[in-house]
Parts: sequence; structure tokens; C-alpha cells
Amino acid sequence: MDQRSVADLSEDELIASFVALLPRGSSTVVPTGDDAAVVAAPDGRFCVSTDVLVEGRHFRTDWGSGADVGWRAAAQNIADVAAMGAAPTSIVISLVLPPQTPVAWVHDMCRGLSQICAPLGIGVDGGDLSAGEQIVVAVTVHGDLGGRMPVLRSGARAGDVVAHAGVLGPAAAGYALLESGRRGGSDEELVAAFLRPVPALEAGPLAADAGATAMMDVSDGLLRDAGRLALASAVVLDLERPETSVPDDVARLADAAARMGEDPATWVLTGGEDHGMLATFPQGTPLPEPFRRLGTVRAPGAWQVAGQARPAGTVLIGGAVPEVASTGWDHFRR
Amino acid sequence: MDQRSVADLSEDELIASFVALLPRGSSTVVPTGDDAAVVAAPDGRFCVSTDVLVEGRHFRTDWGSGADVGWRAAAQNIADVAAMGAAPTSIVISLVLPPQTPVAWVHDMCRGLSQICAPLGIGVDGGDLSAGEQIVVAVTVHGDLGGRMPVLRSGARAGDVVAHAGVLGPAAAGYALLESGRRGGSDEELVAAFLRPVPALEAGPLAADAGATAMMDVSDGLLRDAGRLALASAVVLDLERPETSVPDDVARLADAAARMGEDPATWVLTGGEDHGMLATFPQGTPLPEPFRRLGTVRAPGAWQVAGQARPAGTVLIGGAVPEVASTGWDHFRR
Repeated sequence: MDQRSVADLSEDELIASFVALLPRGSSTVVPTGDDAAVVAAPDGRFCVSTDVLVEGRHFRTDWGSGADVGWRAAAQNIADVAAMGAAPTSIVISLVLPPQTPVAWVHDMCRGLSQICAPLGIGVDGGDLSAGEQIVVAVTVHGDLGGRMPVLRSGARAGDVVAHAGVLGPAAAGYALLESGRRGGSDEELVAAFLRPVPALEAGPLAADAGATAMMDVSDGLLRDAGRLALASAVVLDLERPETSVPDDVARLADAAARMGEDPATWVLTGGEDHGMLATFPQGTPLPEPFRRLGTVRAPGAWQVAGQARPAGTVLIGGAVPEVASTGWDHFRR
Repeated sequence: MDQRSVADLSEDELIASFVALLPRGSSTVVPTGDDAAVVAAPDGRFCVSTDVLVEGRHFRTDWGSGADVGWRAAAQNIADVAAMGAAPTSIVISLVLPPQTPVAWVHDMCRGLSQICAPLGIGVDGGDLSAGEQIVVAVTVHGDLGGRMPVLRSGARAGDVVAHAGVLGPAAAGYALLESGRRGGSDEELVAAFLRPVPALEAGPLAADAGATAMMDVSDGLLRDAGRLALASAVVLDLERPETSVPDDVARLADAAARMGEDPATWVLTGGEDHGMLATFPQGTPLPEPFRRLGTVRAPGAWQVAGQARPAGTVLIGGAVPEVASTGWDHFRR
């Protein structure tokens, strides 16, 4: 075990100590190590998205390993390009490290990046390091559309079917268990769902190929993200109660919720970080696996609840405005 | 003047308040606002590099404006893709903000990004926000090679001419003036060189077109970066004293150095952040403007100083191992 902290090494020495841990991708033309990397973009366009994780906000070093942080930083970014219908090709990472950060933690984080990226052929093609007061992991991911039209949030039309691929709630349950300190031996799966989410990556390009009219990654909770899609598309999303349409998740959540005194429906509707894909398809489209029907797109105005027309951006659950707090995660407002 | 801090707004409100300040680029296909942006890559490859700026390390909010920070974050990244021979096309930015950060500072930073990006046709095509303990600005930049071969650090060959485009030392002088608190009225130009560096962007593609064998952005000081190029190319760089070859810089630095009791040669040789381009060209190549000859590439071993063969990676100044500390900036080692 490496007992050094990053302050014991120069920047060049630190980089040299971990660069071999990072995967070269199948699209990497010039790997990390020069002023910039060069990545293949056979489509003639590339998708790009960036996400930042901050110690004490998105992760705690006593909740999981450096590898968990590396995995999650990559996973949530990769989900964003998948949600456009693209296949991920390359990531770069900027890393802020307090001087006392163990070198072993940094190496472990690189291993976590590699564990999710290498099997997908994604290269870790560049990075930058700085000292700072808390660990910050800023990842930028790129994807190739392979000739597909990018699937935007704004394309849902009245009459379309709403569908979801992936899980809803387990990451929020895992977060609640970690935060409460009441994590039991049977909770490993839920805790792992938070520490190492497995986005519905293949579902993105499959949905694009199947003719999805709109799509997005569910990262801030179903209600909040569905509201964003509805607003961008100027529609109302009329969803069934997801616990009736996604029964596997509820079975996994019920036990933890009972012990925590929580309503599992709150995790399902407002829990973020599961990184499933929410998409809309023209009525009659055979839904590609693993999408499950979640509801219907309605025109705003035409659709009334208790005699009131609902504006664009509204999300209905079981025909009603949901009772749970629907804001989901917000970094600034408290 | 907006008196609010970022804690007064939700994340969505904050984003909505500044997104119109950010430029859409000439290569932007799908702009920021969806899960990912889509950027044109007509070359079929793209260059990518990432750099992070940390409050208190790379900038201080009492030294300059938010616009200065936005400008510099973009400038130093753009220089990295230029140093491959590419034209910059698109940036994305992750931003960590303490809750008390003024909204006006964030808007100002967006304006600084736009001031450097918009005239170059570079889009600010995505971003992410988080709260944190100190301001962190992580920028990723992309460039298009336009059919050029990327110019690596590793291609310099014995007999090549070493050349530099841009300035050497002014940013280090500006930093020293700011840090000392002894900034005078006549120092605005040097202070601006640190706060708003103007990289030798056009020089990158011009050098590639002229047949440069190796190239890099000088961001950590001439000696340190020349040493990296020499090591990557397994050669020795035999440089003239840059103050004799780049006289304009010395004239600008001499006055400040005299007042500070510093040797301007130290700023020229070890000062980072000017973001000039260091390149090597085959002997006899007419140097493209604004490159100036700085020396000659030598084979390691064959070249002796005081009877000792110099190993690959050595940088000689005026035929001798330089006397100034050559390490340049290092984030971790103190």
C-alpha cells in the first residue's frame, strides 16, 4: 500500500505514477500525454457533456473507495451522451486534490475509471491536476452518433408513448442508507446502486434507432427530469405510478424503506443518480428492450385535472399532480 | 448591479440567468441545454484537452474580474489544441461555486468566456454547476485539425531549428507584481498579460502547415516545457539566450524587474502562462510569422558540455546548463 500523499510527489511524478492505469480507447488516435489528445469522430460530429463531482456534496471518501468515485464520475457523464443516442468514445478529467490526498486514493480512482471505461472501449484521453481545498472530479465525455439524428428533449408530441429504461429509486435508497448510517448487511445492492450506478447506456442508441422523439438521462429524479422534458417539448407527461409499472424496483426498495420509515414512492419519483433513460416514442412503436411503458404524452391545455388545464411542463402521476416534493436534487437552493 | 449570491437562486434559475451570455459557435450543431451538445468535426477527428483553475491557486477574485477568470480559463485551454495544429471549435465548462459567490461574478465570468470565444467562432456548448468550498473552473476545449497531421511533442530531430511564437515572461512579471502588491500605474500591460493572456493561437496551425516536426504550448515556463519536448523527442535543445532573440519582451520586463529587484531572465526562462508556441522545424524551413528562431535541436550524447555528454531532455541556454531554477510551476511540490 502506497503511504504517500500527493504533496510528496511533483505533478509530473504523480501523473507518471497513474497514467498506465488509464485505458486507451478504441477511438483514441493520440492518447493523453501531449498538449491535447486526438479522438476519432467517424460520424463527422461528436457529442460532448461535462459533469463535476465535489467531495462532501456528491461523494464522501468514507462512504466508498476512490474507485467508486472514478466509476460514478464516468458513469453519470457517459449516460448524458447515451441519452442523445450516441456511443461513448472518450473522456477527459480534471482533478483537484488537497495536498494530503493519499496517492493510493488517486490510483484507486483511476482504476474505477478504467473499470467502467475499458470494457466499453472508452479512452481516458487527457486530464489536468491542481491542488485545492476539497477533491473535485470534473469529467467531460464524448460520443459518436454513428449517423443517428441526435435525440433531443424537445421532440415529444401529444400521443407519444413515454417509456423508461433502467431502474428508479435504488441510488436514492443507497444514498439515504449511507447518510443515515443505518446501512445493513442486506443493503449492499442499494448502496452499490448509489456508489456505482449502471446507466442504461445501450438503451440510448437503441431508442434512437427505434425512432424515439425525445430522450433524456434521469439524473435528478423522475419528476424533475420528466418536467424538463415536458417543458422543452411544450407538452404534459401523463405517467402511471412507476411502482406499478416497474415492480422489480419496488420489491428491492420496500424492505429498506420500511426500516428507514420512508415512502419508497418518494425514492422512485424524486431520487436521482440512477441514470435510466426517459424517452418518448410515436404511438405503436415496439419499445426496444429494456424500455417499459410509463405513460402518455398529452397536449397542454387540452388536458384538465379537476377542471384546470395543465400547462406545458406538467408531469401527472396516475392522472393527478403528485403529492411528493418534486424538486429533486438542487446544488444551490437549500 | 445584481446583489444576489448564487445561494439565492436554484440551479436551473442560475443557468437560465447566464445561458444567453454564452456564444454559440460556428461548429455548434446542438447547443448547450440538452443532455449533451453536438459539435461538428469535419476532419473526422477532434482534438481535446482539459485544464482546471482553482481560486487561490490560479486566480484570486481580488486580483481581477470574473471576466478575467473566464478569459484565462478559455485561453489556456485553447492554446493546447492550437499546439497540436488544430483550430479551436468548442468548449464546455464545469463550475464549482461557494454559495456566497455573487451572481454578478458568474455573469462576468461568462462575459469573459464570450470575449475570447465569440470572435474565434468557438461555442460554449455545455457545462455543469455545483456548490463547493472554493471556486473551481474546469474547461475542456475541442479543436478541428482540418486535415493536418497532429504535431506532437515527440517529433523533434537533431539538426531541426527550435522556434517560438508569442511572448516569454510578461505573465510571470504580472503575477509577481500582483503577488507583491507593488503594482504601479505603468504595469497594467504586464498585469493584463497574466490576467488575460493572448496565446499564439494562429501560430499553431501555421506551424503545422509549415511542416513543424514537434510543437507544444509553453504554459509552465520555457525551460520546463522545452525539457518536456526534448525528453519526448529524445533530444537536447540548445537554445540561445531568449532575451537576445526576443528583445521586445526584455524591454517590457526590465523596468518592472528593476523595481522588484528581480532578474528578468528568470521570468523569461521559467515564467509560465504566456502560452506561446514552442516548435521545431526542419533546417532551412522558412519560419512562419510570428515564429522567431530560438536555437537548434542536438542529438543527446554527441553534444558535450564541459566534457560531459548531455542526456535526452536537456535544455541548454547559450551552450550551458542554465543557472536559474528551472522547475517552473508545480501544483503539489512545495
